[in-house]
Amino acid sequence: MRVSYQELFDAFVRALRTTGLDDDRARLCARLVADASRDGVPSHGLNLFPRLIAMIRAGVVDVHARPLRVSAVGALERWDGRRGIGNLNAHASMDAAIALARVHGIGCVALANTNHWMRGGAYGWQAAEAGVIGLCWTNTLPNLPPWGATVPRVGNNPLVIAIPRPGRDGAHVVLDMAMSQFSYGALASYRRRGEPLPVPGGYDAAGELTTDPAAIEASHRPLPIGFWKGSGLALMLDMMAALLSGGRATHQIPAHPEQETGLSQVFMALDLSLLEAPATTPGTVDAILEDLQTRYPGERTLETRRQNLEQGIPVEPSIFELVRSL
Amino acid sequence: MRVSYQELFDAFVRALRTTGLDDDRARLCARLVADASRDGVPSHGLNLFPRLIAMIRAGVVDVHARPLRVSAVGALERWDGRRGIGNLNAHASMDAAIALARVHGIGCVALANTNHWMRGGAYGWQAAEAGVIGLCWTNTLPNLPPWGATVPRVGNNPLVIAIPRPGRDGAHVVLDMAMSQFSYGALASYRRRGEPLPVPGGYDAAGELTTDPAAIEASHRPLPIGFWKGSGLALMLDMMAALLSGGRATHQIPAHPEQETGLSQVFMALDLSLLEAPATTPGTVDAILEDLQTRYPGERTLETRRQNLEQGIPVEPSIFELVRSL
Repeated sequence: MRVSYQELFDAFVRALRTTGLDDDRARLCARLVADASRDGVPSHGLNLFPRLIAMIRAGVVDVHARPLRVSAVGALERWDGRRGIGNLNAHASMDAAIALARVHGIGCVALANTNHWMRGGAYGWQAAEAGVIGLCWTNTLPNLPPWGATVPRVGNNPLVIAIPRPGRDGAHVVLDMAMSQFSYGALASYRRRGEPLPVPGGYDAAGELTTDPAAIEASHRPLPIGFWKGSGLALMLDMMAALLSGGRATHQIPAHPEQETGLSQVFMALDLSLLEAPATTPGTVDAILEDLQTRYPGERTLETRRQNLEQGIPVEPSIFELVRSL
Repeated sequence: MRVSYQELFDAFVRALRTTGLDDDRARLCARLVADASRDGVPSHGLNLFPRLIAMIRAGVVDVHARPLRVSAVGALERWDGRRGIGNLNAHASMDAAIALARVHGIGCVALANTNHWMRGGAYGWQAAEAGVIGLCWTNTLPNLPPWGATVPRVGNNPLVIAIPRPGRDGAHVVLDMAMSQFSYGALASYRRRGEPLPVPGGYDAAGELTTDPAAIEASHRPLPIGFWKGSGLALMLDMMAALLSGGRATHQIPAHPEQETGLSQVFMALDLSLLEAPATTPGTVDAILEDLQTRYPGERTLETRRQNLEQGIPVEPSIFELVRSL
């Protein structure tokens, strides 16, 4: 089933308005969620939307809270998300980081006390559309066993890096990756299709590496990317997010997805336009991508976006109906 | 064979002085190389030193070149390494980033036209010792096939993240990781010991994942951490380094290690001391590490350092003799 972008967007706005969210903010929140589905990431778009509404109704997410700057020095700011809507907080934080970068060359906003940002890539595309390099990450509830452990103690802490390509019709380079090799959502998709994972994704009950998604779902031992390396990187991202924002670290975040709140996030932007640029700069990204001879991060996103805007956005009918009934 | 720190340091200084390097700079360069061996990273310490001297003698590395700031806006600076000694350029750049962070909260120095920084972790420890969060990375010659390719087109682009722990007797948290699962140096070590890799580290000639180090050395297909994920991350690090510094990207760097020059690097520092800190901050890192219940990045480094300072630093006798004869 495919629906138009407008239909999807309208359904989100309607549902958000029932929670008391202001119209402007409902529209921005809805756009970010609809964009995720449009770009081929329904797991962090439509499919995650009912949980957002449930968390608002349960009082975990406060629709009336707006992020507040609590401390600042030069190009570094600390914001309090006040348990507001995660994607609105994140969007405001990246905007603030971009504004800092316009003045200082680089800007960093650390956000405490926020909620799930839904699709992290959104804030990378936001930076790239503004013509700046974007770098951001979030911590999460503990969902990944660190290297050397069998129970989840680190988060999969998605990291986003975006490089703008002005004048390339939106073909920015945007990497959006969690520190786990496969998310639980991805494991479930492979299981439902009856397919093995393309590469080992975790451990089975016997502690052996496996490509069987169901075995990993059962063991709760998905694999960090690069084994000890992704485990270490996830730890550092959590530490930096908690320290910079003054907020919670992963071990302090409730471990149930519907109670996951009080996250810490970091948003950086870099604006090169004020530097003296060697003449080679404009073609740098093109030349790198040309040499690569394989797909680059964000390439498929843009293709999917164009296709979905033309043909309609694929939706899970039951979830779309649920959202329309909210 | 073990030698004292002083013996190792003196041997490096002597060899560097023969190249015409100033005494002060020879001492700093020697210290950084000796520190690597002291900390259990001889592959990027003593064992890499003969190549540095060879590259100086071949005219690839210019001992008289000092890095020069070529452009600046606020907290962002661009430096030209002028093909000088890589570890001295990197050390100066992290110092400059720290100085920026003291004023602006965050500082970023992008360095073009430099040489191999030897042990990346050094600049993380440098930031942590200065009490700031450090973040730096380098690009490299093409030594890693990107996901979907069979020939090296990205670098393993080491990334370093350091978190200071003031008052903990130097027990900072420092991650120093390349984007390949195993370096060629590590593959050779496993092969010489006749051991399989602990996890799959690349592809054999038939294109199958393997734990046989020799098969990967033969195929030249080491694995990026997390398959497509580390491949994407390596690409983004290269792109950011080349764009920010205005210098070379991996595809422009000569592919032979002894000709590897004109690297691009990024150094960031974050100084939280000027932010209003919630009372919980000082214990944040301790609490995270306590919850982790496994080793953290940098923990073993400190243990090795203490042991080596007490018992002497293990050296490969033939390499140590070579250095003494330089």
